[in-house]
Amino acid sequence: MLVVLAPGTKVAGVFTRSVTAAAPIALCRAHLEDGRARALIVNSGNANAFTGVVGQSHVVQTCEAVARSIDCDPKDVFVASTGVIGEILPINAVLLSIPELVERLSAHHWEAAARAIMTTDTFAKGACVESLIGKQKVTISGFAKGSGMVEPDMATMLAFIFTDAAIPQVILQALLVEMNDASFHVITVDSDTSTSDTCLLFATGQAKNPLPVAVDDPCLKQFKQDLRALMIDLATQVIRDGEGATKLIKIVVSGADNHSAARKIAKTIANSPLVKTAMAGEDANWGRIVMAIGKSGQKVDPNKLEIRMGGHLIARGGQRVEDYDEKPVAEHLKNHSILIEVELGIGAGQSTVWSCDLTHGYIAINADYRS
Amino acid sequence: MLVVLAPGTKVAGVFTRSVTAAAPIALCRAHLEDGRARALIVNSGNANAFTGVVGQSHVVQTCEAVARSIDCDPKDVFVASTGVIGEILPINAVLLSIPELVERLSAHHWEAAARAIMTTDTFAKGACVESLIGKQKVTISGFAKGSGMVEPDMATMLAFIFTDAAIPQVILQALLVEMNDASFHVITVDSDTSTSDTCLLFATGQAKNPLPVAVDDPCLKQFKQDLRALMIDLATQVIRDGEGATKLIKIVVSGADNHSAARKIAKTIANSPLVKTAMAGEDANWGRIVMAIGKSGQKVDPNKLEIRMGGHLIARGGQRVEDYDEKPVAEHLKNHSILIEVELGIGAGQSTVWSCDLTHGYIAINADYRS
Repeated sequence: MLVVLAPGTKVAGVFTRSVTAAAPIALCRAHLEDGRARALIVNSGNANAFTGVVGQSHVVQTCEAVARSIDCDPKDVFVASTGVIGEILPINAVLLSIPELVERLSAHHWEAAARAIMTTDTFAKGACVESLIGKQKVTISGFAKGSGMVEPDMATMLAFIFTDAAIPQVILQALLVEMNDASFHVITVDSDTSTSDTCLLFATGQAKNPLPVAVDDPCLKQFKQDLRALMIDLATQVIRDGEGATKLIKIVVSGADNHSAARKIAKTIANSPLVKTAMAGEDANWGRIVMAIGKSGQKVDPNKLEIRMGGHLIARGGQRVEDYDEKPVAEHLKNHSILIEVELGIGAGQSTVWSCDLTHGYIAINADYRS
Repeated sequence: MLVVLAPGTKVAGVFTRSVTAAAPIALCRAHLEDGRARALIVNSGNANAFTGVVGQSHVVQTCEAVARSIDCDPKDVFVASTGVIGEILPINAVLLSIPELVERLSAHHWEAAARAIMTTDTFAKGACVESLIGKQKVTISGFAKGSGMVEPDMATMLAFIFTDAAIPQVILQALLVEMNDASFHVITVDSDTSTSDTCLLFATGQAKNPLPVAVDDPCLKQFKQDLRALMIDLATQVIRDGEGATKLIKIVVSGADNHSAARKIAKTIANSPLVKTAMAGEDANWGRIVMAIGKSGQKVDPNKLEIRMGGHLIARGGQRVEDYDEKPVAEHLKNHSILIEVELGIGAGQSTVWSCDLTHGYIAINADYRS
């Protein structure tokens, strides 16, 4: 998959924090330094991770070949790879495909691009929104992939967002980091962090809006809202398509000691195999939520804890509420979207995390077939 | 299940670190203060966790009833409960069972006792060994339960160990903490920490051996080895019976920056759903081990990393070895016991952790049926 961007495009990026990150990650980090971008090339099927110096050389060769084809600086080319770890990239196939990719470039191929980067994904993930910077209309479009090995650490599996807005690179990067923290950074399929997580935000400047002067410039108010919503949209599409997933679980933790504690508790619930299997079984087994809160290691006063599912109060004051009726909770669990709310009652820390259920489908995808 | 112990019995204990620990945990911690024990009573089916003041009162009533029946101080009675979280304990059934339990006491009922505390366990777990303190023969016997919600934090689901050795309580506690750290503390079925984890070590003193004077008293050398082996035996029985498990996976991490880093890396591999499903599928997908090491957040130099399965070298120097032959690795993965070795090459930190595979069986037990 190849994207070619207008001259003058600025780029912001966040990447996996894995200490065994794939070869393209180091290259993208280096190419991000001057904040300029002209092309993005992505392959699926092979992650080019743990491939040593050979893998590093393959990314450099790829950038040089793309740069020659579209007449730009190799430093303005970004690369991402997703797939099996530890196998050598079939570099000749990659290099040979570039002329055809260039020939078939079109502004209408969004869905084909989203589809090209899929691995175990079952549907292409994209979103588009019209926004404003000051009074100037701008567009934000993005696509993403990811289904398993998804608990991004500062980024997601692969997500690419494009806008025609003109935004200085420093502001663009700040926007991406802020919105990523509310979207890709708070999703989990299986608690496993990929070696290839990459989220890039490109701004071509073609909308010719007046340049914002700071990240809190009032002219960015609407744009921020829309970018945030679009990134949450893409991130939850990844979770809806989590390997074997049948349910999207939204976990809202409030009243925690601080933001970090709230997020840790929400992530602990989100990653608990016993909570995830209970949701798969549409089982109102709220005791497993208590267990997950308990193992989070965060400050908790059981006597101040409140637990709700689907908005229905289940537990308060260190025990189940007296008039608890499981029926409406069981009804709620039949939905595709499930809401778990935990109020800790000890502070102002709050966090929202998205997860999915753990089903036979996940086992079938990851254990039944030889990968 | 009721155990009655000889007058003069000393006890040591370690418990869950869950912040939503069950009612019996707080009571055991309090009763441990004077280091004396006369009885242990355990129920399964209901964890008496997140049951508020009612739950606390139920543990007190249970201790008082046992104390009356066997004529001891209620402070010398220990209680453990395992099962569903958040339901009120049917206290009358517990209290009414005590006379019958007392009447049926026998020194030969070890297996029945191990069986009585089972929940989703498929077999009773026990071990017994003859040991020496100085030249005096002593016996160590223990049983345990646990199958799901098993990643003990300083203890296991439930494990009870008994010896006729005479050992001062301070030394007994130090021995338990040390051996626990090499056994129950390094096992994981599903990364979920129970609200009820309890490991108690009782020493009746009936062997009338000379008292050891310190935890490093040379007379304890053989006893320590045997206690450690017995506790590892019980702990790995829990993993072999992990919910849905078909394989016991031993993960040995060496050459890490320090012990704590080694353990964190081993635990990250042990808890990775993608590693666990690969093992279930007998799939030599070593890239998932690279991924898990990468997300551990510990100090790692990919170029110094070595990965082995079943003793076969797979990766070294940041990539797969050139002459890698998958056949013997694939053969090894057909076994019930699997060995994963990671050498980091940067320090002297070492840790061994036991885990199990993640199969359809786990999903069936936890999602297919209403709990």
